[in-house]
Amino acid sequence: MRTNAPLVHCLTNTVVQSITANALLAAGAAPAMVDAPEEAGDFAVVASAVLVNVGTVHRRTAEAMRLAARSAWTAGTPWVLDPVAVGGLAYRTELAADLVALRPTVVRGNASEVMALAGAGGGGRGVDSTAATDDAVTAAAELAGRTGGVVAVSGEVDLITDGRRTVRVGGGSVLLTRTTGAGCALGALVAAYLAVTDDPLAGAVAAHAHVALAAERAAAAAAGPGTFAVAWLDALDGVDGDAVAGADLRAEDVRGAG
Amino acid sequence: MRTNAPLVHCLTNTVVQSITANALLAAGAAPAMVDAPEEAGDFAVVASAVLVNVGTVHRRTAEAMRLAARSAWTAGTPWVLDPVAVGGLAYRTELAADLVALRPTVVRGNASEVMALAGAGGGGRGVDSTAATDDAVTAAAELAGRTGGVVAVSGEVDLITDGRRTVRVGGGSVLLTRTTGAGCALGALVAAYLAVTDDPLAGAVAAHAHVALAAERAAAAAAGPGTFAVAWLDALDGVDGDAVAGADLRAEDVRGAG
Amino acid sequence: MRTNAPLVHCLTNTVVQSITANALLAAGAAPAMVDAPEEAGDFAVVASAVLVNVGTVHRRTAEAMRLAARSAWTAGTPWVLDPVAVGGLAYRTELAADLVALRPTVVRGNASEVMALAGAGGGGRGVDSTAATDDAVTAAAELAGRTGGVVAVSGEVDLITDGRRTVRVGGGSVLLTRTTGAGCALGALVAAYLAVTDDPLAGAVAAHAHVALAAERAAAAAAGPGTFAVAWLDALDGVDGDAVAGADLRAEDVRGAG
Repeated sequence: MRTNAPLVHCLTNTVVQSITANALLAAGAAPAMVDAPEEAGDFAVVASAVLVNVGTVHRRTAEAMRLAARSAWTAGTPWVLDPVAVGGLAYRTELAADLVALRPTVVRGNASEVMALAGAGGGGRGVDSTAATDDAVTAAAELAGRTGGVVAVSGEVDLITDGRRTVRVGGGSVLLTRTTGAGCALGALVAAYLAVTDDPLAGAVAAHAHVALAAERAAAAAAGPGTFAVAWLDALDGVDGDAVAGADLRAEDVRGAG
Repeated sequence: MRTNAPLVHCLTNTVVQSITANALLAAGAAPAMVDAPEEAGDFAVVASAVLVNVGTVHRRTAEAMRLAARSAWTAGTPWVLDPVAVGGLAYRTELAADLVALRPTVVRGNASEVMALAGAGGGGRGVDSTAATDDAVTAAAELAGRTGGVVAVSGEVDLITDGRRTVRVGGGSVLLTRTTGAGCALGALVAAYLAVTDDPLAGAVAAHAHVALAAERAAAAAAGPGTFAVAWLDALDGVDGDAVAGADLRAEDVRGAG
Repeated sequence: MRTNAPLVHCLTNTVVQSITANALLAAGAAPAMVDAPEEAGDFAVVASAVLVNVGTVHRRTAEAMRLAARSAWTAGTPWVLDPVAVGGLAYRTELAADLVALRPTVVRGNASEVMALAGAGGGGRGVDSTAATDDAVTAAAELAGRTGGVVAVSGEVDLITDGRRTVRVGGGSVLLTRTTGAGCALGALVAAYLAVTDDPLAGAVAAHAHVALAAERAAAAAAGPGTFAVAWLDALDGVDGDAVAGADLRAEDVRGAG
């Protein structure tokens, strides 16, 4: 990651653009937020990976997302779909369904979002999941089968599957849920890791492990959610590749399944 | 607040979305920024409270604000209007006048903004007030009479009135004025408190007291405006309900008026 | 600066609005982000200085930028153009060429951007320069000749020229490149300094020196990019005018040229 410094093209919500860019920089990637319809399609072609996060989507950015996802799909650029609050709101739910047809390399969401996207009901409360990660196991596998890619369900323990293999990543910190954009930044880090590996499942697992390890370090140093967010960026920078590679070897967190 | 975790629907300016969301999370609420016209009206119905802040408003977000405010008004959902820089700029001044007709539960602004909204002249310098809080006493009471709600005027000492009762909240820190979005986040916290009380005046006072107490704690620990903003989020999390309830009992800060 | 508290009208990208506003506040200026076409032209007239940064530009904000730049030009208000990622993307490259015709007081960018804007090729990788500062010496001088203003090229050592005089500002910290928006905030600080001096070259140099000095202080205290960004805001507040005035007297960093 730090050697290649992949260029990650982010079409993401306006609430989290800053922490997303800072998290990518801390992890060694290069962020670029380009979300004009006039530019997004062209830029997705030159980027190393693309993130599409529908958190504050509207007409113009929806158009840019469609163009960027189509470019990524055509060019073979790995791309991540983060279906924020899909299920509860019709406009973005229709958009996300269209985007799924462009075969995202990884879908990353919470249990409610993944279930809604898979057509298994769901629909959370705003950006919060009302379902547990394990409720989404079947939906995640079904969705992965449909995209031919990977589906990652974030929760207390994260579940990551390509429909055949399933990995669980534990650890992390509850303070991640009290920091705006930590989950959205995770989606961007998944995209960054996809750019430096040929195995999307391994890339998604590495991103989740990186975030969880950094969160554990930050939580140990934090006096509250403010200092946690700052320490988390420091820790994303401080965690090295060996630690990330070692993280998913923690026996109780990794299980072959499917 | 922490028990109910009210869902606060924020239509706010792009500069402060991140600190607004983080302040809500720190105080125990759940933020959701949904500002597409296709979604804002529906989402305001399911939210516990709505914030409309016109800081960087433009055509699309103005339409979303009108829809969200109308939904909130129809559904009886409490909502807050923050008339940033109203008075100085015609476009947002007209929008804010229309929104006042939808009877915001609370209007929160600085003295210049409240006076402009009440039609008493005013109009500040950008986002800064050129009038003192006490200059706005009459305008605030008149505006509260017109909306049937509460008007909060932020300043060195905050003035909060429903036209019959008036409460002043002192304390806080001058560093709040050197942190982008602290005032805007206060508007969101007012909305959060409205969701957990039946008395809008008490809710607005509690939010102001919460922010002021946290600012005092943060200022004691801060080396400058950067560390202050971080410590303020920690302190918003650390202040408990008893401290907030106690704050407005500080005799010199509370005066019945009329 | 701290005495005058210049009002800086920023039309800038959505990723960096928060750190830009906080950097301006820390340095003693007053930020206002107004980017609706309905308001930008009028507001540029009352502002002390204007910043136009095309980082996430799209149709609506491009229109607002044209209106604000034209107002600034007509009213004689100093204004700064930050041509983020110009050269690589056609839409913003055309816009930036049009804006150059409105004679920005200062153009601030990296070497790739300045070379692209001067028509000397270039075009970086996303927001990153693929050229060194010294590659842009000729392009910067040529561009300054065309605008009649100043061109500042950011890099390990910054190069600032009005086509006749050239100043280099060294120091700073590599951590500035790992903090989203530090370069964009520098552009805003240049605008703030232009409002309090009649010599655009001196204003631009003072802003670069202020940022570099604050970065050195922050780097000494930082444990990583997260704590650096926070400490940098503290240090922007802590650096005083004497330190800024003294910075460009450091002999090895200042050379008369041209």
